[in-house]
Amino acid sequence: MILDKVNFPVDLRSLTTDEMNILASEIRDLIIKKVNTTGGHMGPNLGIVEATIAMHYVFDTPKDKIVYDVSHQCYPHKILTGRKEGFLNPDLYHKYTGYTAPEESEYDLFKVGHTSTSVSLACGVAKARDLKGENYNVIALIGDGSLSGGEALEGLDNAAVLGSNIIIIVNDNDMSIAENHGGIYDNLRNLRETNGNAECNFFKSLGFEYYYVENGNNIEALIDTFKKVKGVSHPVIVHIHTKKGCGLDVAEQNKEAFHWIMPGTLDHLDEPKTQTSESYESITKDFILNKIENREPICVVNAGTPGVFGFDKNYRNKLNKHYTDVGIAEEHAVAYSSAIAKSGAKPIFCVMSSFVQRTYDQISQDLCLNNSPLTMLVYWGGLSGADATHLCSFDIPLISNIPNIVYLAPTNKEEYISMLEYSYNQDKYPIAIRVPSYPLMSSGVADNTDYSVLNKFSVVENGEKIAILGLGNFFELAKEVKNEIQEKLGINSTLINPKFITGVDKELLESLKSNHSLVITLEDGMLDGGFGEKISRFYANSKVRVLNYGGLKEFSDRVALDELYTKYRLKKELIAEDVEKCLTDALLTV
Amino acid sequence: MILDKVNFPVDLRSLTTDEMNILASEIRDLIIKKVNTTGGHMGPNLGIVEATIAMHYVFDTPKDKIVYDVSHQCYPHKILTGRKEGFLNPDLYHKYTGYTAPEESEYDLFKVGHTSTSVSLACGVAKARDLKGENYNVIALIGDGSLSGGEALEGLDNAAVLGSNIIIIVNDNDMSIAENHGGIYDNLRNLRETNGNAECNFFKSLGFEYYYVENGNNIEALIDTFKKVKGVSHPVIVHIHTKKGCGLDVAEQNKEAFHWIMPGTLDHLDEPKTQTSESYESITKDFILNKIENREPICVVNAGTPGVFGFDKNYRNKLNKHYTDVGIAEEHAVAYSSAIAKSGAKPIFCVMSSFVQRTYDQISQDLCLNNSPLTMLVYWGGLSGADATHLCSFDIPLISNIPNIVYLAPTNKEEYISMLEYSYNQDKYPIAIRVPSYPLMSSGVADNTDYSVLNKFSVVENGEKIAILGLGNFFELAKEVKNEIQEKLGINSTLINPKFITGVDKELLESLKSNHSLVITLEDGMLDGGFGEKISRFYANSKVRVLNYGGLKEFSDRVALDELYTKYRLKKELIAEDVEKCLTDALLTV
Repeated sequence: MILDKVNFPVDLRSLTTDEMNILASEIRDLIIKKVNTTGGHMGPNLGIVEATIAMHYVFDTPKDKIVYDVSHQCYPHKILTGRKEGFLNPDLYHKYTGYTAPEESEYDLFKVGHTSTSVSLACGVAKARDLKGENYNVIALIGDGSLSGGEALEGLDNAAVLGSNIIIIVNDNDMSIAENHGGIYDNLRNLRETNGNAECNFFKSLGFEYYYVENGNNIEALIDTFKKVKGVSHPVIVHIHTKKGCGLDVAEQNKEAFHWIMPGTLDHLDEPKTQTSESYESITKDFILNKIENREPICVVNAGTPGVFGFDKNYRNKLNKHYTDVGIAEEHAVAYSSAIAKSGAKPIFCVMSSFVQRTYDQISQDLCLNNSPLTMLVYWGGLSGADATHLCSFDIPLISNIPNIVYLAPTNKEEYISMLEYSYNQDKYPIAIRVPSYPLMSSGVADNTDYSVLNKFSVVENGEKIAILGLGNFFELAKEVKNEIQEKLGINSTLINPKFITGVDKELLESLKSNHSLVITLEDGMLDGGFGEKISRFYANSKVRVLNYGGLKEFSDRVALDELYTKYRLKKELIAEDVEKCLTDALLTV
Repeated sequence: MILDKVNFPVDLRSLTTDEMNILASEIRDLIIKKVNTTGGHMGPNLGIVEATIAMHYVFDTPKDKIVYDVSHQCYPHKILTGRKEGFLNPDLYHKYTGYTAPEESEYDLFKVGHTSTSVSLACGVAKARDLKGENYNVIALIGDGSLSGGEALEGLDNAAVLGSNIIIIVNDNDMSIAENHGGIYDNLRNLRETNGNAECNFFKSLGFEYYYVENGNNIEALIDTFKKVKGVSHPVIVHIHTKKGCGLDVAEQNKEAFHWIMPGTLDHLDEPKTQTSESYESITKDFILNKIENREPICVVNAGTPGVFGFDKNYRNKLNKHYTDVGIAEEHAVAYSSAIAKSGAKPIFCVMSSFVQRTYDQISQDLCLNNSPLTMLVYWGGLSGADATHLCSFDIPLISNIPNIVYLAPTNKEEYISMLEYSYNQDKYPIAIRVPSYPLMSSGVADNTDYSVLNKFSVVENGEKIAILGLGNFFELAKEVKNEIQEKLGINSTLINPKFITGVDKELLESLKSNHSLVITLEDGMLDGGFGEKISRFYANSKVRVLNYGGLKEFSDRVALDELYTKYRLKKELIAEDVEKCLTDALLTV
């Protein structure tokens, strides 16, 4: 293998083009095998193999700095920068993260997992270089899908007037995760179709010098162009046309499905897809189709991640004009949805918890200040073993401290449907619903709660001494805790399903004071700024004790969920221990 | 007066061009007089008089919908849409807000005060129109300064492929609040210099049909072009070149100073500017200049609002290469600053509290996840009588619930300087400092605190029974409360200056338990998600009572500060009342 003698980029620089082509093929094989084993980003990495080799061949990394955007295309880079063992040795498949990580290598500048950041970060690297009187190339590598994000566009606008060396490589594979949407993409297509010579050129209009490489999977062509821009004294765009999934037929043909794959996908290509059972996703999809069949002015909006919600191509086609994918542009998505609502139509904005934080100001100003009756569905909210870049545990502090919005936490199918209908049909508030990220639960009984009566918690079982508030995903844990306390301490606790994240049921909490001395809150997210602290604040001036359970303020990084639960004491037996201690202490000190 | 017979846009439509020109001049006089009396946005409104008349003349408002961006250019619009009394009658000068406000008029679609939102909102209005099968024009009016914001760029990208009627009027007066920065502005200049015919055209590159009006203060020219685009079936840009401050010589010549003026500015033009006394702004400016003199790689970054920090043109020139105004692009500003810090130079990002919320994800991902040692200075944080669009009371919940960042709250000059030096010289954390928005206080004694020991609260006066935590701006109030409690209740309270917003001094709080039964927290911002709730959470499982004081979760709208303080009980006598009641209750029930 050529790869045997390549450990770091410096080893590349003595290879012939033929050897580099063989190397590309070796790297591709490693990626296919590893990703099919562990799951991960397949298409983006296969498309960028040649460009990665060419970059490290031409530029003097690590002195020259490459800033990756979203960095789900960094596997070839990791292989070439001292970390090939993580792809060669199945025992080490999990040693390195799927994103750039400075703690792993000096070749990785930033920890990155959200899109559209590379140009701004590269501008900062270049500015520091200039202030310190240093001299090296700064390269940002950004995919076409990331270009639609506001941060990327702000970055391009500023990079264009930086006045010194910055090289922005636009990796154009004509796809975001799904197909692209937006005027920029028409321009990219024009540029591809004219070999970079279209009259209108987005990048030139901003003032960039512009280069085009039609075959972005051809190492020689890439090297040739990179050599031309190396050492430039001004901002440059190199637009390279690559093939997403390049070298793996099924990935080339199914670009969306092979953007990110589950383990073993390649081993089960011929098996028919099993009929998926009912889920919160399927309920949502049916709800939407039903409204369309009723000819209602519904509009489903999302920002470039339809797969998160199960909106496959077939489903999107059914939605037709009732569907807008704005591309990676969460800020626009919220303002757009707010205005649709304010104008009397019915928007449903679907967003993953980790990405809702890309649009705080729009939720506050465009949406909540205008009190537009939007339905926002927040998916995947909760603690997880995810990479630090994709945590979903901040949506409660983020959303619930903004005035006017109502944030709801259903605990089962019937509540979810009832909340969806309520939100869809009302016109008083922006409403967000935290779609449960736990398996579908069903009570079997329709939920007829009138959710227009805000902040009314539901007492599921009456008890005494201890009240347990189990919010959303953690209502099931609350049940377990109740049973554990009954068994261990012989106390019949009151079980409460708060349902409302954004408000406190003062009447109920007040009434608990008469025969409860301890209130427990459980929330599937960070405690800081969250739900439990409001309950603590409420009881702070009373003799009622409160124990808040949830995550601590930290960026956990690929920590197994069970380990997190133990650390945060989110287990029935640990909570029962705390309760016992608290009750003892209270007796001693009160 | 022509204005006598114009109450609503329909009245305009029978006027001759000559009459409209007289009307423009009448409106201009009203604005100059009113704004010079009340203070407010002068330049933007004077520049847009003719375009406002022409829009309402050509388009069938309110059936046709105009969406204003930032809306500090809506005074002529208000005068023409039923609210001229607010400009004619000095007694009614304060009746209407300085921004579009749907509660005032059906001609105002959205409550708007942050920039870069109009295109996205207009897209939503247009989409609702199309879904409902209605037929009218949707117009967004956006200034050139707002174009650099990510939300505007995301909006343009999407508007270009909307597929139906949307008309975006770009009001290009060649100025943001200060001068513009970014590649887009070079393109706008090229377009102005070529009468709209430059080869590179940013808007055309996105796919828009494009019109240019060189004299954007000429009613006939505007009407002529607006008529051409009225009723179009696709996205259109109308780029109009207007003069900021048009018709008021001093405003035309001093565009930045006359963007927004204080009351009476025109009456004191000849008076020499008084030497301003020492302030937190002046201290900051001196601090920065000192670092530059020492040839340090410092870089001051802000996003289009240098005036907030006292960075006038003269000062900016002194900063030279050590200064970056990124334009209205807070997301880029944070990522850029983070990368500067990560690369070993010394960024100081200055931002107004109300605008820091435009960049949550970048603070979380680009900055805090990467733990870059940035210094972020947050100005104007605190409760205020501001318009609902410009509240500064959310920065504590927003910033302090993000991991890794250290948010500091100085209470006087010496602490501020000490924290600045600490932050600047350390390389461990992102650090934000809430620059006091109260008048400069001085202890007269240098602060030698070692702030690298995180979350160490300072006990200023030792007492018993009651501890008062006065955060930042409200430390002075805490002193008053202490005195009031001493006088009224004869209790010598412990007085604490927390200094750290982002962490809890567990050791100190634990120690207070031994001889304190009540802890009071005071913070100048929203309680929800803020500082006090953390203290309540800490004591929730103890017998110590806590009273949290701060703002309630709401968008207060031009409510006088004294009225807010009363409502939130942020006054020494009200707090002493609460304390008395709490102590009585506690005795009764414990």
